[in-house]
Amino acid sequence: MNTPAPTSAFAPLKNDTFIRACLRQATDYTPVWLMRQAGRYLPEYRATRAKAGSFMGLATNTDYATEVTLQPLERFPLDAAILFSDILTVPDAMGLGLSFALGEGPKFAHPVRDEAAVGKLEVPDMDKLRYVFDAVTSIRKALNGRVPLIGFSGSPWTLACYMVEGAGSDDYRLVKTMLYSRPDLMHKMLQVNADAVALYLNAQIEAGAQAVMIFDSWGGVLADGAFQEFSMAYTARVLAQVKKEHNGVRIPSIVFTKGGGMWLREMRPLDCDVLGLDWTVNLAKARVLVGESKALQGNIDPNVLFANPAQIEAEVAKVLNSFGTPHTGAGHGPTHIFNLGHGISQHTPPDHVAVLVQAVHEQSRKMRS
Amino acid sequence: MNTPAPTSAFAPLKNDTFIRACLRQATDYTPVWLMRQAGRYLPEYRATRAKAGSFMGLATNTDYATEVTLQPLERFPLDAAILFSDILTVPDAMGLGLSFALGEGPKFAHPVRDEAAVGKLEVPDMDKLRYVFDAVTSIRKALNGRVPLIGFSGSPWTLACYMVEGAGSDDYRLVKTMLYSRPDLMHKMLQVNADAVALYLNAQIEAGAQAVMIFDSWGGVLADGAFQEFSMAYTARVLAQVKKEHNGVRIPSIVFTKGGGMWLREMRPLDCDVLGLDWTVNLAKARVLVGESKALQGNIDPNVLFANPAQIEAEVAKVLNSFGTPHTGAGHGPTHIFNLGHGISQHTPPDHVAVLVQAVHEQSRKMRS
Repeated sequence: MNTPAPTSAFAPLKNDTFIRACLRQATDYTPVWLMRQAGRYLPEYRATRAKAGSFMGLATNTDYATEVTLQPLERFPLDAAILFSDILTVPDAMGLGLSFALGEGPKFAHPVRDEAAVGKLEVPDMDKLRYVFDAVTSIRKALNGRVPLIGFSGSPWTLACYMVEGAGSDDYRLVKTMLYSRPDLMHKMLQVNADAVALYLNAQIEAGAQAVMIFDSWGGVLADGAFQEFSMAYTARVLAQVKKEHNGVRIPSIVFTKGGGMWLREMRPLDCDVLGLDWTVNLAKARVLVGESKALQGNIDPNVLFANPAQIEAEVAKVLNSFGTPHTGAGHGPTHIFNLGHGISQHTPPDHVAVLVQAVHEQSRKMRS
Repeated sequence: MNTPAPTSAFAPLKNDTFIRACLRQATDYTPVWLMRQAGRYLPEYRATRAKAGSFMGLATNTDYATEVTLQPLERFPLDAAILFSDILTVPDAMGLGLSFALGEGPKFAHPVRDEAAVGKLEVPDMDKLRYVFDAVTSIRKALNGRVPLIGFSGSPWTLACYMVEGAGSDDYRLVKTMLYSRPDLMHKMLQVNADAVALYLNAQIEAGAQAVMIFDSWGGVLADGAFQEFSMAYTARVLAQVKKEHNGVRIPSIVFTKGGGMWLREMRPLDCDVLGLDWTVNLAKARVLVGESKALQGNIDPNVLFANPAQIEAEVAKVLNSFGTPHTGAGHGPTHIFNLGHGISQHTPPDHVAVLVQAVHEQSRKMRS
């Protein structure tokens, strides 16, 4: 009974505001969800993680992954859920040996630093990622149609950063040394990554994901020119292979390049529905640069959540007004999905998240009236 | 005999290529210098630092500071020297207690985190920074007119980041919490910082600096809107007070905002001669955004220096070609100062720096012929 249930077995979607906004359709208010909304700032998350023993213990256990994914929805009227997992599951399945020490970032036991290591890379058997797809199906069932479920992966370039560095980095010296001195190896790795990410996202869609997001968390560390060649081209290669619909239902795709505001015009041809933006980007300017073919997602500074409620409300207003009034009426038009410009800080007071979500909903309803 | 020698006592400038390019005048080739060119990648620097005992021991000793400033010029035909010092000397002089542990970043013993601490901040007595001005005069004498000497400071916002955080940060939580929750305190601190930085740069100019640079190293972490209000406005306040000439000689000013490529058009009115750019910026686009009133400085990725010589030459060509042919002939026109997009890595092979400097000089001469 490990086979995922067919999508048709899932409950119908009650709140489709997020999906409609992704597809540039009118909504009554601006939908909101938060990157890393299931996380350490919630005491109930910390309790579940303590039971699980480790981050990967949490991510690989279907019940725990389901539990923590739903926790923020119990507190806040968010408009989407996002699979609880990590961006580095794919290279882990390639045999690189992912681990997380408490309070530290991810580490790979077997980083990829030479021709021999790159030569051994292969698109992994998706059975090794079964725990992810099982979690997707379990979460989708538990959501019971409340809000849509977003699946995700790291981008090919972002995966390559960790695969070469073996951990986080503040200068990306090793991965960029390979990029500049052995571009052939870097392209080989990125091809494998892109094809693996596409398979991975498609398997999440088959398991029940109703939208997918590609996190190009480290695209913004690349030089102009290198970004287009080594990051964006491989995001495009993923998008070319990702299902646009499943069982007759459209599956929106979101691309988020942290620090990618310089290249918005060049991202215009990307075959995705939504572009995610960090807080350095002015949403009105982004609308002009991106054109009218994509929805925009973002982009409040997560540190706003450390201010007091009145100030949070004022900053929410700035972001909503920066985008301007979204599309109303029939057909398609400009739409905005409210989010942070980066993952929520573990130090965030949960009450302030409630203030932010309520402010987005109330203010954006007023904008439309 | 601690009074700085009058500027007229300094030797005449033999290589004015850098100054001419700052002022948008034609040069025979594109001048080049490297951020952090006097630094740990040079074994002779490490030897001097070992003698000095600590980073601040090095920076506060006139002879050592002079020695390390000149070291890269002995190896490479660079077109400018930059004062060896730190961006955080000004808050140290305010009494915050700067220290550097070996292999770690800067730390302040007394960070500024509340109203009382902000209330105590004052523009420091410049006598506390006498060691910097003495170093400037000593270096200028030792240069003997070989190339111009650049003085510098951190920007008001970048100083505030360290003053509030007390050290480097990866999320700027404390300083942004103050910014969003107590903007009045942040403005107060930035005013003091701006006036202190202006005095500090003017004293460097009087001591012998022939150009000045403001490092807004952390401007790029701010949200759109907050950057303009809390970083750029105070850089402008510094520029309004900095001497434009000394003893009848023009003193060019450079503003470098790491991660500021999104705001180039808004930086157009800044009263400086040069804008520094990081590697995410396309130089041709930057020329259009900035307009023809400023020279551009930058912007190769320092990690290019880990590639082999032929690849370094190819990447130099990309950056030079991205700017395009600079102004030749009389009057003023577009000019480019070659630099890295960030400080050089301590792991850089010095021989590769020689390749880069030679490639810039040779290729840029050819572009003009």
